[in-house]
Amino acid sequence: MASIQSAELTQLYASWGTRMRENPDMPLEDIRRIFSHWGDVTAEPGGVDYIEVDAGGVPAMWAIPKGAAQDCALLCSHGGGYVMGSMFSHRKMFAHIAKAVGCRALIVDYRRAPENPHPGPLTDMLMAYEWLLKTERLNPARVALTGDSAGGALALTTIAAAREKGLPLPAAAMPMSLWAGLDTSGESYDTNAARDALVSRDTTNALGSLFVGPDGDPKHPHANPLYIDYHGFPPLYMTVGDAEVLLDDSRRIASRAKAAGVEVKIDQVPDMQHVFQFLAGTAPEADAAINSMAAWVRPKLGLGSSTIGGGDL
Amino acid sequence: MASIQSAELTQLYASWGTRMRENPDMPLEDIRRIFSHWGDVTAEPGGVDYIEVDAGGVPAMWAIPKGAAQDCALLCSHGGGYVMGSMFSHRKMFAHIAKAVGCRALIVDYRRAPENPHPGPLTDMLMAYEWLLKTERLNPARVALTGDSAGGALALTTIAAAREKGLPLPAAAMPMSLWAGLDTSGESYDTNAARDALVSRDTTNALGSLFVGPDGDPKHPHANPLYIDYHGFPPLYMTVGDAEVLLDDSRRIASRAKAAGVEVKIDQVPDMQHVFQFLAGTAPEADAAINSMAAWVRPKLGLGSSTIGGGDL
Repeated sequence: MASIQSAELTQLYASWGTRMRENPDMPLEDIRRIFSHWGDVTAEPGGVDYIEVDAGGVPAMWAIPKGAAQDCALLCSHGGGYVMGSMFSHRKMFAHIAKAVGCRALIVDYRRAPENPHPGPLTDMLMAYEWLLKTERLNPARVALTGDSAGGALALTTIAAAREKGLPLPAAAMPMSLWAGLDTSGESYDTNAARDALVSRDTTNALGSLFVGPDGDPKHPHANPLYIDYHGFPPLYMTVGDAEVLLDDSRRIASRAKAAGVEVKIDQVPDMQHVFQFLAGTAPEADAAINSMAAWVRPKLGLGSSTIGGGDL
Repeated sequence: MASIQSAELTQLYASWGTRMRENPDMPLEDIRRIFSHWGDVTAEPGGVDYIEVDAGGVPAMWAIPKGAAQDCALLCSHGGGYVMGSMFSHRKMFAHIAKAVGCRALIVDYRRAPENPHPGPLTDMLMAYEWLLKTERLNPARVALTGDSAGGALALTTIAAAREKGLPLPAAAMPMSLWAGLDTSGESYDTNAARDALVSRDTTNALGSLFVGPDGDPKHPHANPLYIDYHGFPPLYMTVGDAEVLLDDSRRIASRAKAAGVEVKIDQVPDMQHVFQFLAGTAPEADAAINSMAAWVRPKLGLGSSTIGGGDL
């Protein structure tokens, strides 16, 4: 059964739905302002410093837990349908993950649609990944990607684009509640329609169209991770709430990647909503999911497996 | 007339009042959790880095605007009746002020009552002030104090305590909506009782008792800035909303300081609530007040008077 605390996210999503239904012509600026408060439900992790940087041409923010390993990093892509969200709205959530892993996190403020439709966000993520390798001189074997929703998709499309560019691949990726864009054929769009407090076919169609733009190909593997060829991909760990309409997006991609020989772990967390990791420090399900991600990724990054929650310096 | 945006703070305070009235025995932990969301109404300033430090024994956070002058600083004491609030809840508000002034801000996470009643918070503020002078080697003529509510009182009591200890005094202090503790004789407690959405005689009595503790003297000048001898104090700039029950706390202290020969400026902002500067980046009244504070304090800190919003590096 879901914790009492986890209802806070459900209520937040329901209140956003009410506001948007009451004002169907709400300007994009106002919708973005609503989503800028996504992280209000996340507790402050504390013991983490935040430094804004230019990551090779794209704005980003380092979240640096005290005592974190300096020679490895998480590259983080935030969610919000490629249209909303920012390095600020997701600061605390990614900082919780960085703290649990014991390494730094680079939260990328990629350009968003509709001003910069596909491949704008991906281009920026790839730029930040190259910056980590070339300017920050990080060993790709000590870099993992993570992201939520559209940012979960970006974690996968960034790896596909890096491969095509001949760049070395990161050690792992951990998409949370990932969103397979305009494809709404997953059964969970129907079976979870009444349970999901935020996402629906309507939101997917509206945001997906803004993202792909009038000329984009929604089935291009850079636009939708459903169409990636996963052969040779690094290990993947997907987490998704089983109350989400996007549940099948994670399931289908996990199946595809497994069939291509990739090491895949998938957690379907009972009764959880879209990106329930926003409840870090607030609800036990979020903390458990983050600790589980940290335990899984630490050995892959060359960090000790036993010291969850601490660095190795 | 108050801006439409400023209603957001009034509504936030009203919702807190409702929650506390519905649960009169709410545990302190839950009340603190409510107040930890004070800063949710503040926009992200952006372009500011945040570094947690040990300021000579007390936890604190540097807010460092990009391009800020490194050789001057604001020493910031947060509000919350000495019982609630933290360097996290007030991070964005003080960062907005630091950015407008163009210098760094040290936000002190002093120990709070009732676990640490008077003089606990003051002892910690004094420790942080000494750390700025001795470890960070800042010239006191390039340090200004600011704080809101109980933190506004702390800005003044810290100067009084520094003077007694023979420390050099800072260049200026800028208390916002300052709270004169257990003294509720100000007329505005009655005249603004229906307008103030947060503070009342009841809250003052409850928090003031926790702060002073069973053995403390509520009329000691270290506990209540109403009783400070202001002779020799640096220039003071007070800002207060004219809808506040605490309006007369600022007015009375301004009069006492003026009578003692201190340079005093006081702004009584029409229709504004307690610590309306929390609306920085959200409501025009907050931005105007912060820009006015910055314009006043920059020359006092040896910064150019014309470059509001920028640093001098």
